[in-house]
Amino acid sequence: MPRTVDVGELVERARAGQPRAVARLISLVEDASPQLREVAAALAPFTGRAVVIGLTGSPGVGKSTTTSALVAAFRRQGRRVGVLAVDPSSPFSGGALLGDRVRMQDHATDSGVFIRSMATRGHLGGLAWATPQALRVLDAAGFDVVLVETVGVGQSEVEVVSLADSTVVLLAPGMGDGIQAAKAGILEVGDVFVVNKADRDGADATVRDLKHMISLGRRERTGPSWRPAVVRTVASAGQGVDELVAALDEHHRWLVAHGELERRRVARASSEIEAVAVARLRAELGDVHQGGALGQLAKQVTSGEIDPYRAADELVAGLRAGH
Amino acid sequence: MPRTVDVGELVERARAGQPRAVARLISLVEDASPQLREVAAALAPFTGRAVVIGLTGSPGVGKSTTTSALVAAFRRQGRRVGVLAVDPSSPFSGGALLGDRVRMQDHATDSGVFIRSMATRGHLGGLAWATPQALRVLDAAGFDVVLVETVGVGQSEVEVVSLADSTVVLLAPGMGDGIQAAKAGILEVGDVFVVNKADRDGADATVRDLKHMISLGRRERTGPSWRPAVVRTVASAGQGVDELVAALDEHHRWLVAHGELERRRVARASSEIEAVAVARLRAELGDVHQGGALGQLAKQVTSGEIDPYRAADELVAGLRAGH
Repeated sequence: MPRTVDVGELVERARAGQPRAVARLISLVEDASPQLREVAAALAPFTGRAVVIGLTGSPGVGKSTTTSALVAAFRRQGRRVGVLAVDPSSPFSGGALLGDRVRMQDHATDSGVFIRSMATRGHLGGLAWATPQALRVLDAAGFDVVLVETVGVGQSEVEVVSLADSTVVLLAPGMGDGIQAAKAGILEVGDVFVVNKADRDGADATVRDLKHMISLGRRERTGPSWRPAVVRTVASAGQGVDELVAALDEHHRWLVAHGELERRRVARASSEIEAVAVARLRAELGDVHQGGALGQLAKQVTSGEIDPYRAADELVAGLRAGH
Repeated sequence: MPRTVDVGELVERARAGQPRAVARLISLVEDASPQLREVAAALAPFTGRAVVIGLTGSPGVGKSTTTSALVAAFRRQGRRVGVLAVDPSSPFSGGALLGDRVRMQDHATDSGVFIRSMATRGHLGGLAWATPQALRVLDAAGFDVVLVETVGVGQSEVEVVSLADSTVVLLAPGMGDGIQAAKAGILEVGDVFVVNKADRDGADATVRDLKHMISLGRRERTGPSWRPAVVRTVASAGQGVDELVAALDEHHRWLVAHGELERRRVARASSEIEAVAVARLRAELGDVHQGGALGQLAKQVTSGEIDPYRAADELVAGLRAGH
């Protein structure tokens, strides 16, 4: 049987800046431990303070280098920074080039920085569950900024982007990213765009295409209008990183001034509550399943006797009837 | 208001081989039209006959070329073939090289072939919903074989693979696919492996690595034991395609002989019923939302007053109470 921990003490130690306590809390929430609810209740009063920044972009645009440069910039301002790396190709997740790993080491001994790879956590599809939980831990533990790094394709990543107060979309010259971004709907979620590797050929064209697409997209937007910033960086050399931080700060001020920060955070909480509720209902359907009801219905569907919708009616009716 | 169609007549026309009736039925089910349930009920008695083959692999291994070659081979046997292309990079989805498009044209005037791109259907994440529905239409319409082509990464693709009676995993020499496949857990789902572009350097090494990994994987398997076949193809030249068809037929006979076909199809129906039931419960939570309950709870979570688990408790309680 897993050891029962003193949750109150653990939260206190995490808030005092002990990285092992933070790591332990994240493990407790993301593994859906029996103490999960106790932990969630203990964290709640301390949440809502962290600024959450999502970083997304295709592999190869320099997401992890940019993340690392941002961490350094925020640290220079004295802000404590948490990083949740949801991208399996990220060096934070251990699957990267040596140079990147070395850059990460810069932060390894800094107690104002906490890095967690979410890439190998749980099953496929579990990220959308585990990431908001880990975010709540870092928020409650007093990190001023939390960076959530995702690869920017697929549904779970889109869900993770929706966690952020501000979303940074990274592109690089000559990768056809503009088209990819438009396809994936990533343009719509970007608050700040970064053209990284801006010293390379084609950077001007990428910036121009991007601005053009942004101006087209703006026509369709409703609600208070933020004009997405476009920043050029050479993250590996630290160039443009201060401008990126400035753009993020400006966006944050805009969010506050227009009531958008509250709106986004309420929307995030709604999604989270709904996900927990759906997970619970799904588990209860599983209990009905244990009773053999689903198996029997599935056989009737397989034989063509009934269709899946009628079968679902009966399954839901069984759920309501009790269990 | 959308036009109400005579569902019985539409099913009859689809079963008589009219492609427009098939397309219309797919649109009705995948858009969750008001007539969805009527369509599902009308299709049910005619389902369960099609052989469903999943094809998956990384971009560039030649999935669409192989799919096209398989379509031609099945047509030579007089079997009617449906194709559901879930891969956004597939030429079936319109995003491909000219040469591939021309190959697809070979089937364009053949009424024994029906091709549907699922890639742009609905929202992100909607594929896992829409694809089984489209599959039921093709099955009921009398297609003997349905090929489901996916890109083989991400959760929705994994779910789509689970639709298939037999799953073909494609690799190509020198693409590091072996490692990628192992990471993605794709090795475990493959019933037949294809090393395409087998005329290229490194094909022998890829076949050897693959057989080695399969033999390692088999030790951990339980249940009736199928030894995954490994077939070499040069799909663009039609080489090895008859061997691939033979391997698929052999796997199908094995599935029937060991009761695995029934087991897989019941499992598929279970997933489908569960997905419909969860979607319904989620919609009902949305109705509670309309009533303002979720919004109110989300504000309390945002302010740290309660945690998401307690909020979910209250939401589910509201659902049970029948709002």
